[in-house]
Amino acid sequence: MFEQLGLIGCGLMGGSFALAMKKAGLVKRVVGYSKSPSTTDRARQLGVIDVEAPSALLAVAGADIVLVAVPVAATEATLKAIKHLVTPQMLIMDVGSTKADVVQAARRALRDQVGSFVPAHPITGREVSGVEHAEADLYSGRQVILTPTERTFTAQLQKAQDIWTALGSRVTSMSPESHDAAFAAVSHLPHVLAFAMMNSITGQDTGDDFLSLAGPGFRDFTRIAASDPKVWRDILLSNRDELIAQSKLFQQALHTIEQAMQKGDAQALEDMLTLASETRAHWRMGAKRK
Amino acid sequence: MFEQLGLIGCGLMGGSFALAMKKAGLVKRVVGYSKSPSTTDRARQLGVIDVEAPSALLAVAGADIVLVAVPVAATEATLKAIKHLVTPQMLIMDVGSTKADVVQAARRALRDQVGSFVPAHPITGREVSGVEHAEADLYSGRQVILTPTERTFTAQLQKAQDIWTALGSRVTSMSPESHDAAFAAVSHLPHVLAFAMMNSITGQDTGDDFLSLAGPGFRDFTRIAASDPKVWRDILLSNRDELIAQSKLFQQALHTIEQAMQKGDAQALEDMLTLASETRAHWRMGAKRK
Repeated sequence: MFEQLGLIGCGLMGGSFALAMKKAGLVKRVVGYSKSPSTTDRARQLGVIDVEAPSALLAVAGADIVLVAVPVAATEATLKAIKHLVTPQMLIMDVGSTKADVVQAARRALRDQVGSFVPAHPITGREVSGVEHAEADLYSGRQVILTPTERTFTAQLQKAQDIWTALGSRVTSMSPESHDAAFAAVSHLPHVLAFAMMNSITGQDTGDDFLSLAGPGFRDFTRIAASDPKVWRDILLSNRDELIAQSKLFQQALHTIEQAMQKGDAQALEDMLTLASETRAHWRMGAKRK
Repeated sequence: MFEQLGLIGCGLMGGSFALAMKKAGLVKRVVGYSKSPSTTDRARQLGVIDVEAPSALLAVAGADIVLVAVPVAATEATLKAIKHLVTPQMLIMDVGSTKADVVQAARRALRDQVGSFVPAHPITGREVSGVEHAEADLYSGRQVILTPTERTFTAQLQKAQDIWTALGSRVTSMSPESHDAAFAAVSHLPHVLAFAMMNSITGQDTGDDFLSLAGPGFRDFTRIAASDPKVWRDILLSNRDELIAQSKLFQQALHTIEQAMQKGDAQALEDMLTLASETRAHWRMGAKRK
């Protein structure tokens, strides 16, 4: 049981964590701060936080657990702003979708205190953002990836694992670099493709007509294109090298399919679609590796 | 009320149409044929059809309505096989995802009888195929596009509109060419991208690890990659010109995003993501055009 969660960033991810911690009986009070005072105010009205803090530093004052839930590029400034009040007993986590840059930012900002920081990435989200969409069950049944470094305190890592497990998540650990390579492939690139798909259609004169005809396949394929632009701007820039490498591999796979279409090679095309279809049909989200 | 539905192709789409017609009380009996006798047998056991026919022609004998629900490249051979029993009173429809090729196939196969044929494309589907997934509500609340030609009989067109409306669908008419241009953009290309995404990942040594980490965004983005390979092989080949044109436009949109990433141009990137996000957030499936 924690005394005080200092929540920095009261959006979908941060707000949902606060609600989950309260629901699980893991925290006595939540002191929240958001860059926009109206967000912090709404978070308090909605019961997501108990007390509004006028700064990130004041949200951390008296906290034994801190969650940084801001766009990844804002991580370093946020950690610098709270450094004076970080103690060796405190657990600090983030929820960012990239990890190598977050670890570097934490090293620079926290220096000797970096051992208190456990980089975390819960594999969840919604296409809507904002504290009004926060929900206590957002993390339940989902994977959470921790990317501790050699300087992370074992006590903090254990606490982090226990908390996410108590919230119903399945915890996995890996290096920040392995994390970023994997999520370039299975998350960041799909987002880029969905964004590009929308812009390709709206860039055509007949784009509105086309969109009026689109059905459930399009709906699901493009759901992630509605994601928060500032959050995703930071993710794409932060992980750009892995992402562009994955994009090149994807474009090769696309080109192979296009070639079979252009040649009219029905058998080659069917073979490629069968491989994709069977792989996808047998895939289960969150299933343990064979 | 129709006396007999002759169903050629007892898969997901055809089976769901038979169930929907029965549920709506629009047909007395369904006589079904599938290329695979085991499929026809299963369709009868499941109550999707009442009588098994040993050939497409025999499914049409005594029918006043015929649905051809086969992969689009099989349309011409199917229509040729039933031509002898087509009457001017009969309504024949298909459910194919491409329409220019289907109209041409119908002209060649049916000749003087082509007026009985109303090309139809219901905008629905599931990532699973087969008669065991057929459901009476598959078409309810969904759009159905009819692409009649100048030789389509008005009586048949009216009947087709009435039937789909009675099944809860919203009916729209357009030319086969406009249909194929639109669906290259909003359906066929998304399928190609989802297939390519799966194959790009499985082509990497670490592909299985990557897949074990993928979350709900990936799940929804790739859902359509599990679609039936034979059905989609035909669609991609049939509409390849429009599809490759749309793919080029998409690749330009992707390249524009990649360039902003490589330059580190955060503002340009945010602007592009904002355009995509707002367009997608305001889009509603099946909403009438502004």
